[in-house]
Amino acid sequence: MHAVVPVGPGKVSFAEVDEVSPRSGEVMIEVAAFSVNRGETFQLETDRPGWRPGKDVAGVVIRTTADGPAVGTRVVAHLPHSGWAERAVVRAQQVAVLPDAVSFEQAAALPLAGLTALRLLRTAGNVVGRRILLTGASGGVGHYFTELAGGAEITAVVSSPERGARLLELGAEALAYDVSDARGPFDLVLESVGGSSLPVALSKLRAGGTLIWFGQASRQAPRIDFFDFFAGPEAASIKHFHYASEPADGPDLATLVRLVATGRLHPELRRIADWSETDLVLDELRDRRIRGNAVLTIRKDQR
Amino acid sequence: MHAVVPVGPGKVSFAEVDEVSPRSGEVMIEVAAFSVNRGETFQLETDRPGWRPGKDVAGVVIRTTADGPAVGTRVVAHLPHSGWAERAVVRAQQVAVLPDAVSFEQAAALPLAGLTALRLLRTAGNVVGRRILLTGASGGVGHYFTELAGGAEITAVVSSPERGARLLELGAEALAYDVSDARGPFDLVLESVGGSSLPVALSKLRAGGTLIWFGQASRQAPRIDFFDFFAGPEAASIKHFHYASEPADGPDLATLVRLVATGRLHPELRRIADWSETDLVLDELRDRRIRGNAVLTIRKDQR
Repeated sequence: MHAVVPVGPGKVSFAEVDEVSPRSGEVMIEVAAFSVNRGETFQLETDRPGWRPGKDVAGVVIRTTADGPAVGTRVVAHLPHSGWAERAVVRAQQVAVLPDAVSFEQAAALPLAGLTALRLLRTAGNVVGRRILLTGASGGVGHYFTELAGGAEITAVVSSPERGARLLELGAEALAYDVSDARGPFDLVLESVGGSSLPVALSKLRAGGTLIWFGQASRQAPRIDFFDFFAGPEAASIKHFHYASEPADGPDLATLVRLVATGRLHPELRRIADWSETDLVLDELRDRRIRGNAVLTIRKDQR
Repeated sequence: MHAVVPVGPGKVSFAEVDEVSPRSGEVMIEVAAFSVNRGETFQLETDRPGWRPGKDVAGVVIRTTADGPAVGTRVVAHLPHSGWAERAVVRAQQVAVLPDAVSFEQAAALPLAGLTALRLLRTAGNVVGRRILLTGASGGVGHYFTELAGGAEITAVVSSPERGARLLELGAEALAYDVSDARGPFDLVLESVGGSSLPVALSKLRAGGTLIWFGQASRQAPRIDFFDFFAGPEAASIKHFHYASEPADGPDLATLVRLVATGRLHPELRRIADWSETDLVLDELRDRRIRGNAVLTIRKDQR
């Protein structure tokens, strides 16, 4: 079958790869659409012999297992890797069924970004009336979190008014074009930039507040001074968060699908392209030229 | 009256200073002993016009207020500053009464280090059976915490066997002479060194564990990489802690005094000197030549 594979630092290309047979508990999906994530662009920069990228796919079940969906079912799935391909194999517990109301493109944009947003909200607890600072907000996670956290008062950090406009429509209270301009104090900070952003965001917390640290998009590790806390968020906590902390993604994927189907969650699909353009879309994603999610589609005759 | 005052970066000397009159709610103490803390050596290095050092004192009440102890009562007190003097003025809620069984020297060693240890333990919650890593353990806080946290399995980081011997007697399970040698994973890390120590200590946590960050003795701000977490303590929390977070210290000081009086807490007084030697003792403290606490005494005829 055809798959998108690494061909040097940061670059990908089509290649013919061996078919993988599902083992017990696994299903095989004929992939109709997949999304690309910024973390995957980082992974593509290091040499990983034999590894193929791809975490988020939507398509049709073509082989199944005892507790899996029936053959022919439309599904979305979250994989550890190897999803950018005509066919993908995944554990049944990582799959959710799609109703007709949810397109393959919408569904493919859900797994990594949607699971992250949903579980950030679960980690945050009840956010009604809480003041939240969300850095690096113009990606998929930022859009999903803003819409899911209705009732919170969110200040979204984005690089331009254009990149923040949709967040205001989805319910954000305010935009900041630099984290230092955000008007605190905040009860909660959601930080995914690292580098110089994290210490500044931390200083905007109220005393006793919490910063949930869920990424390092700047690729720079932050330097945090103990004594800086005394000028601001004394007794604050920094909580390291990783979205893949739960044993099975199927139940949360099903929740996300239901929210999309009932019109309460809107995947922000700003870039949809044929999978022959994967390389181009990865460049755009790496250069932060894509707002929301990017999805690649596989035409039926190419599957 | 005489007081110990700053006379240039890191140096102190005797000086004649104005008497301070207690206001409503304040008591005046004739100081018999005071302790010096490492944080105060840091404060002495910066120019603070009019500021006098001194947080921990023990002595006799010579003027009192409505809800204060009677004149003539032996007490211990925690002050924001100005305690290194013949007489000190402090809010009544910052004072605890001393029974005869507790000496002025023991009492003077209690406030900052003892309150820190007690409140670290309160922040940690129930530690019975929990594996704890304690960095920078040979100071006053380390000795108090080790004795208070009976039932925990503590690994204490100290620079030499000599500096750790008493911690083993007080109940520590193991010593490490470098944080990188501590054998994890730990449920809890208590970190007060900062710099290169904190990231290494953090890596020793179990997944989901907590690092309570209560100081930066190295005076170096740590650099923490988001991605390092995935090699170790995924989903860990870093909790910034400052001992002075409660509105009144009297009740906790009374607890510490009672624990000393009943033989359950033993101030580690490794250095007791006349207050004319304050400058010398500060140098020893700055150079980490003192284990446990250092206390300066004021002879009756000098008060």
